[in-house]
Amino acid sequence: MSGIAKTPHPHYYAVIFTSERTEGDHGYAEMAEEMVKLASAHPGFLGVKSVRDGLGITVSYWESLEAIQNWKQNERHLIAQKRGMTDWYTRYKTRVCKVERDYQFDITNQS
Amino acid sequence: MSGIAKTPHPHYYAVIFTSERTEGDHGYAEMAEEMVKLASAHPGFLGVKSVRDGLGITVSYWESLEAIQNWKQNERHLIAQKRGMTDWYTRYKTRVCKVERDYQFDITNQS
Repeated sequence: MSGIAKTPHPHYYAVIFTSERTEGDHGYAEMAEEMVKLASAHPGFLGVKSVRDGLGITVSYWESLEAIQNWKQNERHLIAQKRGMTDWYTRYKTRVCKVERDYQFDITNQS
Repeated sequence: MSGIAKTPHPHYYAVIFTSERTEGDHGYAEMAEEMVKLASAHPGFLGVKSVRDGLGITVSYWESLEAIQNWKQNERHLIAQKRGMTDWYTRYKTRVCKVERDYQFDITNQS
């Protein structure tokens, strides 16, 4: 889960999930791990990065809107989404985005 | 800087900046604060949220691609971008995205 996600040349898609947690774990860590594993095996998945420091930002990357829609309807993911509202989050916002361009810097590639 | 960014109905734009830092501050915290202030006053700016836990993810929101391009050319921001490569980051990736749809949950709005 460390490092920067490797994604292809645009266009591709990003889902930005910004969230605030409830107090306590309530099975969150276990489900979060399962969701990363399941998503990673899902058709069209390109990568996911997640950071939390009070506020949490998770960005997952996908080949297409269809892949995102299919993942949203995954049976285990539907259960996780429901528990997100009852147990884990006080607030969240999900933004589905088309990545139009990207650029990068890597110190090890500098002369 | 806490909480979830308030953004209008799509479409709008997001810039996802994922980064890994060098060791030490080297004036980073001061410049980061200045950049948030400057960006917040920039035409077309909608919001910014930033989280770091080893990996850093900053997402800024904008009305248009033109607003993003103008901010990228801001004089102080150009200096910050240069220092980002020489002093602050070992790696980063910037993704410019069109937010196509969004949805949210807020526990205080539930019956």
